[in-house]
Amino acid sequence: METDKSLVELTADRLIKYIIDNHLEAGEQLPNEYDLTRLLNVGRSTVREAVRSLSSRNILEVHQGAGTFLAGKALGIAEDPLGFTFIQDKKKLTLDLLDIRLAIEPRMAAKASQEATAEEIAELRVLLDETEALILGGQDQRQKDIELHVKIAQISRNLVVPNLIPIIQQAISYYLDVENQALRDETLKTHRLIVDAIGNHDAVKAMDAMTLHVLYFMNILRGE
Amino acid sequence: METDKSLVELTADRLIKYIIDNHLEAGEQLPNEYDLTRLLNVGRSTVREAVRSLSSRNILEVHQGAGTFLAGKALGIAEDPLGFTFIQDKKKLTLDLLDIRLAIEPRMAAKASQEATAEEIAELRVLLDETEALILGGQDQRQKDIELHVKIAQISRNLVVPNLIPIIQQAISYYLDVENQALRDETLKTHRLIVDAIGNHDAVKAMDAMTLHVLYFMNILRGE
Repeated sequence: METDKSLVELTADRLIKYIIDNHLEAGEQLPNEYDLTRLLNVGRSTVREAVRSLSSRNILEVHQGAGTFLAGKALGIAEDPLGFTFIQDKKKLTLDLLDIRLAIEPRMAAKASQEATAEEIAELRVLLDETEALILGGQDQRQKDIELHVKIAQISRNLVVPNLIPIIQQAISYYLDVENQALRDETLKTHRLIVDAIGNHDAVKAMDAMTLHVLYFMNILRGE
Repeated sequence: METDKSLVELTADRLIKYIIDNHLEAGEQLPNEYDLTRLLNVGRSTVREAVRSLSSRNILEVHQGAGTFLAGKALGIAEDPLGFTFIQDKKKLTLDLLDIRLAIEPRMAAKASQEATAEEIAELRVLLDETEALILGGQDQRQKDIELHVKIAQISRNLVVPNLIPIIQQAISYYLDVENQALRDETLKTHRLIVDAIGNHDAVKAMDAMTLHVLYFMNILRGE
């Protein structure tokens, strides 16, 4: 059985190589099962196992009746990739995640302020307005909030932080009280400070505004 | 088939709940397949699929003939969890990972210097000596190096950074030239600076030494 497992892993690796070599895009369809068996020179059950293993890593998606596709969102990012499931103290986890954001995001905001194109600043402003409208309308702004922070990370040009932020922020948002009025007020104020600083290409102000933003969350969570 | 998939996912979730509720430890054995079908009230093939899905997330390990165990190492952390496979520019990836280390690790070193017990400092010194011995003996020190940085992260008391560092450092070590003499010399010097500062509970020095350590790597990679 160990040998079988290695063949499946090997096949999965070769499937990844095929995807990369052929520059398949997120959401694109793969060859059908029969073609894959010939391409990878293994049996149907091995192909199936390999596809299943890559599905659980969010590399492939099997749509019944339609075929196998490269994952469209968060390509290659596993479910709960950092193992938060097994961290029992969720309040401490949330504070520690905010501590990571405090370390990373001010630096990314500073870099974003140096890199941002006019088009990207306009996109940021749209996300800012949409987040504000949700908050002012008393609606849940969390997904839009994550989009705003991911956009800043993308503008920083760091290839990894845009993958990391949704994982961290999603976990934080489970714990934080989204109804907290102080938190909503503060988000309105500091988001605008951050986006204005990036729009003005002011690295220090962008860094400071992001620091303020994250510290405010930490203080509220600590009950300070 | 969509319903089947949901049942498998549901079963996987209930299996995770079982593991947490029963405080199973890393490496501990789970009930056998027959007991799991009764416990989770689903059929054998569903249990098998759920176990397989949790295996690919590195939550469970199936040892043929012996049974199913909770993963012993990196519990819940899948292979390549942040999707580095699909980032094509490996040099840029490595620099961006070093940029994340530069943001996170000096802060963790500072915290570690405040939290470290006498026993933890002794453990750090052992890891330092072992890493040095490998470097001086011309052997590959990368795994030991990661252990040293993970230990510092653990001492910082942050629950997430010890999970994050191996993922980042493993990816960096694929690209960095481990034979580079300047890099080996620098590692000898700055590792000792970091551990001494933590041992002296000197937060600023620990932070500065870690900053120096990571910046040195970045400069070498940039060819500066």
